[in-house]
Amino acid sequence: MADRTLLTGEPANTHDEIMFATYEALQKHGYAGLSIQRIADESEHTKSTFYHHFDGKEDLLLSFAEFILENFQRAFEYESSGDPERDLKLFLGLLLGEYGDGDESDTDEMLGAYIELRSQAVRNEAFRETFTRTSDQYVDHLAGIIEEGIDQGVFDEVDPQATAGFLLTMADGAILLKTTRTDDPMAQLHAEIETYIDHEVVADA
Amino acid sequence: MADRTLLTGEPANTHDEIMFATYEALQKHGYAGLSIQRIADESEHTKSTFYHHFDGKEDLLLSFAEFILENFQRAFEYESSGDPERDLKLFLGLLLGEYGDGDESDTDEMLGAYIELRSQAVRNEAFRETFTRTSDQYVDHLAGIIEEGIDQGVFDEVDPQATAGFLLTMADGAILLKTTRTDDPMAQLHAEIETYIDHEVVADA
Repeated sequence: MADRTLLTGEPANTHDEIMFATYEALQKHGYAGLSIQRIADESEHTKSTFYHHFDGKEDLLLSFAEFILENFQRAFEYESSGDPERDLKLFLGLLLGEYGDGDESDTDEMLGAYIELRSQAVRNEAFRETFTRTSDQYVDHLAGIIEEGIDQGVFDEVDPQATAGFLLTMADGAILLKTTRTDDPMAQLHAEIETYIDHEVVADA
Repeated sequence: MADRTLLTGEPANTHDEIMFATYEALQKHGYAGLSIQRIADESEHTKSTFYHHFDGKEDLLLSFAEFILENFQRAFEYESSGDPERDLKLFLGLLLGEYGDGDESDTDEMLGAYIELRSQAVRNEAFRETFTRTSDQYVDHLAGIIEEGIDQGVFDEVDPQATAGFLLTMADGAILLKTTRTDDPMAQLHAEIETYIDHEVVADA
């Protein structure tokens, strides 16, 4: 079984069991090699259980996309430190896969699965809606931190939503590069994003 | 037949004919629905011609990835205007699909195909190498413009390669968002990238 660092805890019900099995089949066979049979092979359920829960492979994968996005989001449910600069950099670090604990290769797998699933949205309206809705939640969270920083007078009076959207675009670009290049440019890109925050968001001392 | 605005001119040989047919089959069936038969159906060649030129579907799609990347690159073969700020913004505009002429929906298709092909690199080493090599060429081109700006004293003394890499990351992030969201955030993101250039690259007057 794959390391479940990011899929926290044990699956609570059949739906979660199917999600874990999908994650394991995805790691083993890649997106193009996924089938209901191969996902069933990673679980203790039969194919008929899968068809009882989902209309088919596309429906299952859409649920899986929502599942990993919610999983990412659980990582963000930390208490505000009261320091907006620290909160902003921490949240972006989490988005970029720097959880600080857990297995790094597991994080890479999760980011790779995210890009494979997200690319389905090029032609699939349901995926497109899911990723738009979830991205907007991330943007709202980032914008809330930026507003707090402006209120405290520690951030410049930037447009919170526009700045948050641009930061998330940089993060998505960095994840795309990390998961599809032969080298790993993440450390450098993360530093560039932090410099952007220092120059464009944080108020001059 | 699809609009060939971005696939300039008529195919010069059988290889190019196969590339055009692949592009048309991709538009019609999406990445997941591609097969050698469906690509052959878009051309005047039989399947056996395809197998004469390529080892199989993966080999053909890898060639197609190189073909569209070269096609993008052809768009960049313009003369330097002598104004580095203008050249830098023009090149980024081209990367973001703002060719200024041609059919916009055709550009969207090409950017969508780029994201679908690039996501194959998550698990396919050959795709990963192709995209790394081509991205590095784009970065070198951007870095050359930035060096010219520094030499002319119109840009700050930034690190040309690091700045170019970060600009390309922003552009890739913007393309990922444009092709996988229900709205089209490109105009706003393009403006944010130009503001970044104004603030972080262009020297204060």
